[in-house]
Amino acid sequence: MARPGRIGEFELIARYFAPLARGFRGAGNLQSDNAFLAADARRDLVVKTDTIVAGVHFLADDLPARIAAKALRVCLSDLAAGGSTPFVYQLSLALPSNWTEAWVAAFARGLAADQRRYGIVLCGGDTVVTPGPLTVTITAFGRVARRKGLGRAGARAGDELWVSGTIGDGALGLLVAQGGLRNLSARQRASLEDRYRLPRPRTTLGPELVGIATACADVSDGLLADAGHIASASSLAVTIERSEVPLSVAGRAAVAADPGLWPNVAGGGDDYELVMAVPRRKHAALEAAARRAGVKVTRIGRFVRGAGVELKAGAEIVLTARKGYVHF
Amino acid sequence: MARPGRIGEFELIARYFAPLARGFRGAGNLQSDNAFLAADARRDLVVKTDTIVAGVHFLADDLPARIAAKALRVCLSDLAAGGSTPFVYQLSLALPSNWTEAWVAAFARGLAADQRRYGIVLCGGDTVVTPGPLTVTITAFGRVARRKGLGRAGARAGDELWVSGTIGDGALGLLVAQGGLRNLSARQRASLEDRYRLPRPRTTLGPELVGIATACADVSDGLLADAGHIASASSLAVTIERSEVPLSVAGRAAVAADPGLWPNVAGGGDDYELVMAVPRRKHAALEAAARRAGVKVTRIGRFVRGAGVELKAGAEIVLTARKGYVHF
Repeated sequence: MARPGRIGEFELIARYFAPLARGFRGAGNLQSDNAFLAADARRDLVVKTDTIVAGVHFLADDLPARIAAKALRVCLSDLAAGGSTPFVYQLSLALPSNWTEAWVAAFARGLAADQRRYGIVLCGGDTVVTPGPLTVTITAFGRVARRKGLGRAGARAGDELWVSGTIGDGALGLLVAQGGLRNLSARQRASLEDRYRLPRPRTTLGPELVGIATACADVSDGLLADAGHIASASSLAVTIERSEVPLSVAGRAAVAADPGLWPNVAGGGDDYELVMAVPRRKHAALEAAARRAGVKVTRIGRFVRGAGVELKAGAEIVLTARKGYVHF
Repeated sequence: MARPGRIGEFELIARYFAPLARGFRGAGNLQSDNAFLAADARRDLVVKTDTIVAGVHFLADDLPARIAAKALRVCLSDLAAGGSTPFVYQLSLALPSNWTEAWVAAFARGLAADQRRYGIVLCGGDTVVTPGPLTVTITAFGRVARRKGLGRAGARAGDELWVSGTIGDGALGLLVAQGGLRNLSARQRASLEDRYRLPRPRTTLGPELVGIATACADVSDGLLADAGHIASASSLAVTIERSEVPLSVAGRAAVAADPGLWPNVAGGGDDYELVMAVPRRKHAALEAAARRAGVKVTRIGRFVRGAGVELKAGAEIVLTARKGYVHF
């Protein structure tokens, strides 16, 4: 996630790649993470591609099974945000020239474990050798009832902003992995680092949100950025009340000791929670859906006319998202 | 396409990845290049992923539009072999850290030109920065009538082996690019090198083969290897008569000057022609289909009971494919 002094990923996509997707409505002008294709008479396919590179998106010496899980789960998180149930995936594996069969065996065991956990099956792919770092690209397919898939566009003024689980653990876990947050207990540090290293995509909640949420995204770029993506795709503004943002025990301890960590909590990425717009009249349905999924959901803000995203503490604006948040 | 002293790509797939695809019939046990998914009430999706790496699959200083074309066309060739018509694709672009906006713009122009040429549209993807070489992964989707897609399995004893176009130009073009074949005319050398650098997938012929061919593959690993893949997936042997293998003018000149080039012609890759099994009673239909597609087809051999692949000159066996041909 280098930040070169050039145009960022979102501008790059808008300027050069969105025009290439104009002829296909299911691409949503590349403003959503997912593409939507017809699957059969009753269902659509939700399609998501993610690439992770050793030394950029994960540590090169990480366990092969954990790299496999990360590669698959970042896609599963987007499929969940689309309201879909995991189906099949394609795997492209670019192996460094010093690859070993033992490494591939452990990587495949990691995939097998996650296939069982999430109910998804490999359906094809490619394997090459690269002079560069290990690079894993997964294109994952989920299924959702025809035309019922959730995207970033669709929120309406007055809809409330909800999130699943707890926010900020991914970014705080990265600080722990880098040797920071030494004032926390060993157990708190371990729980944060684990959240950073191994996404837990909300695959049980996502499909339950169909017919309830008007828009949904996963928190991969950071709460403010991803809530902001929903707002901009829906031509709205969104305000978030900081005191409502759900934190883990470790996250609460971290910001209590150092309130200067709030930009990490609200602006950092890798939480892989779901953030969604929900009309007020759907509260009871949302809470029932969350109970069925076994996931906590919290109301943290609302969508209003306008543009932009604000984090507020009462009347005070404490943080705004940069326009066109860059994550590469 | 390094050949490490380890198990090859086919063994790697069979041992570690095919077991991961057991739960999904459309993956065909990963023995075909393509996966098949339901597309709608009447059609299937044919899905193919290919990764190309700078310095491995193309020269790092190649023109960006040509890299874009190569990445897309190697997938289109497989979609054609599946009998499908191009539909949409996902693009994952891992840019080296010194990427420039001008390079991306030219790459996108190359994609745009091929989108018009082949009737395919971008539907999503991912863009990352890598410390390694430029790496392009495309997952392409074609459409074919429900359960009519062509795979490698399906050939029957007695079926004849046909190929489109001319064979060997890709491998001979690689020799030219490396400074070889200096006895050929400048024009012959240029035509061979062009065939190597820029695949011409047989997208008009592929869909015409539905209901005619019993199995089909594209010639990407080499004629013997790809005919052999059809034979082994169909539990048959295949014999090819060398004098029937169609050569271009430049290809004929090359092997006339040096018959030692035959292993390159029949064993080298990157031709991106189609090789197919066709029952005798379908000859007229095949020839009509080839005329509609504007592509020449040639009968070069036949499938018989047994196993393996042989290139014959009359009664003499002149070349056999190595078992488990390695292309990485």
